[in-house]
Amino acid sequence: MCRFVLYLGPRTRLSALLVDPAHSLIRQSTSSREREEPLNGDGFGVGWYARELAPEPAVFRSITPAWNNRNLQNLARVVASDCVLAHVRAATQSSGVNEANCHPFRWRELLCMHNGDIGDFRLVRRKLLASVGDEAFGNVYGSTDSEHFFALYIDSWLASEEPDRALRMARSLSTAIARTLELVRAAGTGSPSYLNVAISDGEHAVVSRFTDDAENAPESLYYFSGSLYPSLADQPPPAPRHSVTVSSERLTADAGWQEIPPGRIIVLDRDRAPRFVDALSGRPLASAENRTAQAAV
Amino acid sequence: MCRFVLYLGPRTRLSALLVDPAHSLIRQSTSSREREEPLNGDGFGVGWYARELAPEPAVFRSITPAWNNRNLQNLARVVASDCVLAHVRAATQSSGVNEANCHPFRWRELLCMHNGDIGDFRLVRRKLLASVGDEAFGNVYGSTDSEHFFALYIDSWLASEEPDRALRMARSLSTAIARTLELVRAAGTGSPSYLNVAISDGEHAVVSRFTDDAENAPESLYYFSGSLYPSLADQPPPAPRHSVTVSSERLTADAGWQEIPPGRIIVLDRDRAPRFVDALSGRPLASAENRTAQAAV
Amino acid sequence: MCRFVLYLGPRTRLSALLVDPAHSLIRQSTSSREREEPLNGDGFGVGWYARELAPEPAVFRSITPAWNNRNLQNLARVVASDCVLAHVRAATQSSGVNEANCHPFRWRELLCMHNGDIGDFRLVRRKLLASVGDEAFGNVYGSTDSEHFFALYIDSWLASEEPDRALRMARSLSTAIARTLELVRAAGTGSPSYLNVAISDGEHAVVSRFTDDAENAPESLYYFSGSLYPSLADQPPPAPRHSVTVSSERLTADAGWQEIPPGRIIVLDRDRAPRFVDALSGRPLASAENRTAQAAV
Amino acid sequence: MCRFVLYLGPRTRLSALLVDPAHSLIRQSTSSREREEPLNGDGFGVGWYARELAPEPAVFRSITPAWNNRNLQNLARVVASDCVLAHVRAATQSSGVNEANCHPFRWRELLCMHNGDIGDFRLVRRKLLASVGDEAFGNVYGSTDSEHFFALYIDSWLASEEPDRALRMARSLSTAIARTLELVRAAGTGSPSYLNVAISDGEHAVVSRFTDDAENAPESLYYFSGSLYPSLADQPPPAPRHSVTVSSERLTADAGWQEIPPGRIIVLDRDRAPRFVDALSGRPLASAENRTAQAAV
Repeated sequence: MCRFVLYLGPRTRLSALLVDPAHSLIRQSTSSREREEPLNGDGFGVGWYARELAPEPAVFRSITPAWNNRNLQNLARVVASDCVLAHVRAATQSSGVNEANCHPFRWRELLCMHNGDIGDFRLVRRKLLASVGDEAFGNVYGSTDSEHFFALYIDSWLASEEPDRALRMARSLSTAIARTLELVRAAGTGSPSYLNVAISDGEHAVVSRFTDDAENAPESLYYFSGSLYPSLADQPPPAPRHSVTVSSERLTADAGWQEIPPGRIIVLDRDRAPRFVDALSGRPLASAENRTAQAAV
Repeated sequence: MCRFVLYLGPRTRLSALLVDPAHSLIRQSTSSREREEPLNGDGFGVGWYARELAPEPAVFRSITPAWNNRNLQNLARVVASDCVLAHVRAATQSSGVNEANCHPFRWRELLCMHNGDIGDFRLVRRKLLASVGDEAFGNVYGSTDSEHFFALYIDSWLASEEPDRALRMARSLSTAIARTLELVRAAGTGSPSYLNVAISDGEHAVVSRFTDDAENAPESLYYFSGSLYPSLADQPPPAPRHSVTVSSERLTADAGWQEIPPGRIIVLDRDRAPRFVDALSGRPLASAENRTAQAAV
Repeated sequence: MCRFVLYLGPRTRLSALLVDPAHSLIRQSTSSREREEPLNGDGFGVGWYARELAPEPAVFRSITPAWNNRNLQNLARVVASDCVLAHVRAATQSSGVNEANCHPFRWRELLCMHNGDIGDFRLVRRKLLASVGDEAFGNVYGSTDSEHFFALYIDSWLASEEPDRALRMARSLSTAIARTLELVRAAGTGSPSYLNVAISDGEHAVVSRFTDDAENAPESLYYFSGSLYPSLADQPPPAPRHSVTVSSERLTADAGWQEIPPGRIIVLDRDRAPRFVDALSGRPLASAENRTAQAAV
Repeated sequence: MCRFVLYLGPRTRLSALLVDPAHSLIRQSTSSREREEPLNGDGFGVGWYARELAPEPAVFRSITPAWNNRNLQNLARVVASDCVLAHVRAATQSSGVNEANCHPFRWRELLCMHNGDIGDFRLVRRKLLASVGDEAFGNVYGSTDSEHFFALYIDSWLASEEPDRALRMARSLSTAIARTLELVRAAGTGSPSYLNVAISDGEHAVVSRFTDDAENAPESLYYFSGSLYPSLADQPPPAPRHSVTVSSERLTADAGWQEIPPGRIIVLDRDRAPRFVDALSGRPLASAENRTAQAAV
């Protein structure tokens, strides 16, 4: 079922997310708290942006567990970025452990990672692939439901004409969720889907917390808005940029962590406070919830 | 483009094929002679049968090169089998190096490995997948043209009613070749395909040497009929079983190695001499060629 | 701290030890019960003998966890052996996760695996290496205390003139334990050592359960004497051979599992019932304990 | 025997060294020109400094070949540094392929990589380890002669009181070379050593080109002084910093590549032109050679 963390804010070391916090992502790879099974040892991946060097992010993925990977520890100490996505995997039965199946997945300048699964994926896979265009189809290299979901996202993104980039990402994500449910309904036996999905282009990010399981809540998901990590010495004078961390489990004991409400997509933008949209309709919420989120920044 | 070796005969150590011969498969992983580029270092795989223990073969695959893999050397010394398939890979651009992309591929009791490529595979992939049944589709885990070709083979095999198992395998292989050419013709730009493909169920094997390239010969392929390896001490009194090795390149300097003619499938059976069928029509050859092959045994 | 299993008896499939039992070694890799930390995910290894093919055993080791390794699952189904050692690792801080650090370690026809650690190993390492002969020194390729302990064993073995092979193994093991304690005493700060060590040559095996920690028991260790696994169909008429499994944790709920007493080495021989010797002195126990063990066979 | 490249200069992308040049290091991993055997496929490693984030460099090492490693390609595109060391390995018989044996090796803020071997290393290893202090001893995790040579370097470095840091590095390197020759003389059979060794602390670097083989030249080694790579867009106005690349083989067809003379250590400093010292005595050369090197800058 996996755990993940996404960061958008001023440049920070990878280790600030992956290693240093009391309940860091590496800690969650052996001892996650909000899943029945605490282990997420079937590989990991980390992606980060250095847009001054290239629009396409770096991706480092491995089939060995995050907790004992020396390369990861070495990278985390020395690499800093203003947008990071990292994921520790608990593989489901149907898909093997190889690098093509490790998150985050990349397409052009986008990264995608997923915690959950698509209901009855084995029955859904063919129709899902048949439903997307060539570009999305051509980006599927492995056998995970997650990478196939990303194909639905890519396809929805290419079809969207929404001019606001962050909103276009949010709407494409909600469209991909809706298409997934429709495909499961048509081909499956009614098994629910769990779709906590994070997508970023390095400047914006959207993360959903969603399930259509009537009996269970979606997988856990939290966000922290504000400065959580030590400033870097070489940093330019603090820009008025928002700093937000979204994580499957709270990284620290700070009081500022807030639960992302079920059925919501959180929308992150460098220049404004987090917003929420409805995960199914893609419509912005003009509710207390958005006001609360903005007040918290 | 890869190199491979297949063995069907009395039990022999894996090392007799992979390590000991002057031009062993491991030697071919660094220094193949009959390809322009001598290197086959993008992973390897070996499959073997122990039908007294299980109908499904063992498969050991790795993304590291064959020449420096200690596990392979250790296994090869101690494992013996009466049917072995082994493959060293030279990856093409379009597909990554991960275990799901290493040969041999397995489906039920069958193993498949490939040396060559499908013309314009990127353009062909979708239609190929759409053309096969659910069972064949569900066996595709990676992104190689080779594994997709195997899906065509599985699909053809499931549709065949030929009662002679070896012939059914041969015909399914020729059907899969014909279907491949048709798909490339329909979707591609006319790039040729190279289809040296080996398939076995542990008791029979078929290996094609084929290309539709009008200007170039197919990839090299040889067979040796007779005893090539030292007898094992614990062997029961020599059964009257045929011993045949098929290899991309001659493993030894023995005079007995013969080229498999272009456009042919060699058909191996424990209880009779090798036969040949036409790679496109699947029809047995009642020719001098078959007579020669039988005389050589 | 690791978990391990050793088997000596009629040929059996590796899967009978590693996969099939309710509390199989693969199960123990995620969910061991008798350690504080249930996880043993820092690589694994399996060694087995096929003495009709070669005196030196096969060894297959990997830095990925046992629970998701397809090669291991494939091998386990098809490989059978009359002597198997398998190990899942929980790495200590001081030594990295690489294949040279995975158990079992091999020297000539011997295999060795370890659950525990040498007290103050970092302070002890130099003197330990200085204390052994060239042959033992030359067999150290990695940085684990376990492989260094094996060097002490090899050195003690080479110096022994005991004619009974099983006893020679037992005495070499107790000598290696005594030498370890002496080295820790001389160089260390008094930290205790935990030395559950299994060694085999394919025909005999010795396994110690030992610690010099005055406050804690040694790591858990059990044995089962008798037939635990399904007979293989191709087996010759049942030889009057003893079948013994030694395991860090009971593989099954069978009543026959017995604890190995602290401070003991169990000595296994194909042709006689298990014996016990004292782990420190190497002296056979003429006690009720040995009589009980024999009665249980 | 390996190939390597070291860069000290203004920040540049890793890909500028590893991927982009016509005869890049990745190209040299399959097709080196100045070794008899062109293949360097037994793993690789890259280390780089980001001293504004941490004094200790990042190290990314892998046992898979450089040419097909997606992580390396991804990192190389996005990571930039002002000091980079990268190495592709051709393993010698005596030491296995695992991450602990991949270069560069790290100790504190230093990185070390090696192309060549220590004569009769198996006979020399014990005495070498016995000859160094605890700090150097404790940094040996694997079994390569290269890592053991680094222990000699560390030991010599700790004993040096030379105040000029670059010169201290050069003298420690020449001392380590002399100690190696002495150890081989005492314990070996007279086999020659090949010691092209690169060491850096992120601000300075020293690279030797040395053999005591009377009949053969040392391994090839070149340097290029000046701007070889495209400027980065985000670079501060060009500092008056020297830019030097040292490489086993010329990366490009530029006329500026110069051979490092046999028996020399090249000494790199951010603020001055390259200097040469004698590899055995460690003494600066006040010769035409140094004048020529300076003139070339």
